Amino acid sequence: MKRHIDNPLIGPADVVPSAPGFRVRGAFNPGATRFQDEILLLLRVAEDCPAEEGTVSVPTLKIADGIGRAEALTVALDDPDVRLKDTRGVIYKGVDYLSTMSHLRLARSRDGIHFTVNETPFIFPSEPCERFGVEDARITRIGDTWYINYTCVSPDGWATRLASTRDFKSLVRHGTIFTVQNKDVAITPEKVNGLYWALHRPNNSGFGRPSIWYAESPDLIHWGNHRCLLRPRDTIWEEMKIGGGFPSIRTEQGWLQVYHGKGRDQVYSLSALLLDLNDPTRIVKQAKSPFLIPEEPYETDGFFGNVVFSNGAVTWPDGRVFIYYGACDETVCLVETTIAELLGSLDS
Amino acid sequence: MKRHIDNPLIGPADVVPSAPGFRVRGAFNPGATRFQDEILLLLRVAEDCPAEEGTVSVPTLKIADGIGRAEALTVALDDPDVRLKDTRGVIYKGVDYLSTMSHLRLARSRDGIHFTVNETPFIFPSEPCERFGVEDARITRIGDTWYINYTCVSPDGWATRLASTRDFKSLVRHGTIFTVQNKDVAITPEKVNGLYWALHRPNNSGFGRPSIWYAESPDLIHWGNHRCLLRPRDTIWEEMKIGGGFPSIRTEQGWLQVYHGKGRDQVYSLSALLLDLNDPTRIVKQAKSPFLIPEEPYETDGFFGNVVFSNGAVTWPDGRVFIYYGACDETVCLVETTIAELLGSLDS
Repeated sequence: MKRHIDNPLIGPADVVPSAPGFRVRGAFNPGATRFQDEILLLLRVAEDCPAEEGTVSVPTLKIADGIGRAEALTVALDDPDVRLKDTRGVIYKGVDYLSTMSHLRLARSRDGIHFTVNETPFIFPSEPCERFGVEDARITRIGDTWYINYTCVSPDGWATRLASTRDFKSLVRHGTIFTVQNKDVAITPEKVNGLYWALHRPNNSGFGRPSIWYAESPDLIHWGNHRCLLRPRDTIWEEMKIGGGFPSIRTEQGWLQVYHGKGRDQVYSLSALLLDLNDPTRIVKQAKSPFLIPEEPYETDGFFGNVVFSNGAVTWPDGRVFIYYGACDETVCLVETTIAELLGSLDS
Repeated sequence: MKRHIDNPLIGPADVVPSAPGFRVRGAFNPGATRFQDEILLLLRVAEDCPAEEGTVSVPTLKIADGIGRAEALTVALDDPDVRLKDTRGVIYKGVDYLSTMSHLRLARSRDGIHFTVNETPFIFPSEPCERFGVEDARITRIGDTWYINYTCVSPDGWATRLASTRDFKSLVRHGTIFTVQNKDVAITPEKVNGLYWALHRPNNSGFGRPSIWYAESPDLIHWGNHRCLLRPRDTIWEEMKIGGGFPSIRTEQGWLQVYHGKGRDQVYSLSALLLDLNDPTRIVKQAKSPFLIPEEPYETDGFFGNVVFSNGAVTWPDGRVFIYYGACDETVCLVETTIAELLGSLDS
């Protein structure tokens, strides 16, 4: 398992802001897939609005005809209609604004290492349920269609939406597939026992700690038979919560699933487990400890330090796996490994 | 709109406990339907375990071969393995127990007023996700099948499950249809635009206040296209949250939906709204104020005072509607009204 020597591969400086007055704070947590002869990443690009002294500036969204357009709203701090909300946002004239908003941007590469970031967004918030942004895409290829699920955030909460594309130019939206509060959805590309299946991560505040759940679907759009699959262990790496990473990889031994744990001091790490090929509600193996822990400076210090988080990977015919991960909610990094090495990280 | 003079129609004293050592604390929040020549209620029966001085006693569930059996667990208060959790339960040897557990029990009537309560449960907790009980059934008849959705509660949170019956003797379980945290699910008996639809009430803690959402399904088991339909208003009746009641009633003017509001001082009341017949995501009318507010002594004083909550009603060919409601999380009451009167309660 080897971090790439060029890490981080992509950072905020590589991304053109999406609107005047916007500043890119993070280019991270990419979904990943192969398309034609390229490796595509679908980056989460988080932007805020730099403000002059004595003012506050926040991203806002105007939706018309199903298209969202971002604008910076700048107001004087001594405006009696302004109320600051700790560091995360502002209430202006009774309306909530967050200080950052994310969209999803494509980056392209031949070798999976050197990427060119598109100059315009691919998925931009464009519905009321996306008013605070769209985040953390996961890509599942089924036949000639690439299904993209992502987190939407709005004053009603965060949830998971589905879209699809056949050319990474046009996009079909399929609505919200997992209602609030739910994210970390990883859709497996193959049906098992006649149904698609996915992992998801509903909030269960007030009861247990956020855990990894299972669900089934006949059509990818409607989901049911939800079951709690795996709860956080009382280890320093998982004690706060866990959630699924990129879509499961089929191996001879079972469905290989990378997941993240949020542990003590809000440190995020990456770990793996194995699900039964014919009954993915059954956990066959799980790693006792993470295979990736924030250690390098670009993983420990940044916009949100001590975070490694993955929602995208590509496999190679020779068994290599390129796991792309967000570091510090700020940059895209790469760790190279193999199916065999990941399977070897598992304990029975 | 007339409360029945015999209210409450059913109370804890009318219900035989489900296990030795158990005591019925509430028989309330009934689902309702017609079956053959009877009106059936599916009561939520909440039980606790009375304890001798110096001990604490809680309901527990043992599951074997898909069947759940309840037992009282009694331990001395000075047992070093006991930790009391305010009034709601106890932790014993590291395992959580709630002080009450609910199951679902049938009650039968010819006139909709005089009920005989069955001596044994109809739906009893029998899976790990039901370990803390099953609650608040809603019944939707589709053809010759009665679909019953209910809330399951477990250490993983509360969610909504679906079962069905054709004879109110045997039961087919269809799994969890709305994952944690989600309840107040009302499934409409007719498809619109080729899909079944339902209202649901996900938790969105940390963002908005719990609101009424919409979802669609091809088969009642898998659900998608979730949308936030209606948020609580800033009135004393709704300021904490709102949630759907019994399944929508088709009228010429639209889908008539009764819902509850939780307002100031945790008072629950009942109100109504109207959804477009061909596009139930569109709210046509909504009542400015509730049609039922806790006022009678049996509504203001009880196990949990100042609660009226409905998840069951039956209609009559002449337009009368019997709305059954739980009062104080303790008893079953009846308010008689008509479709015309409910529609008249709406403001445009």
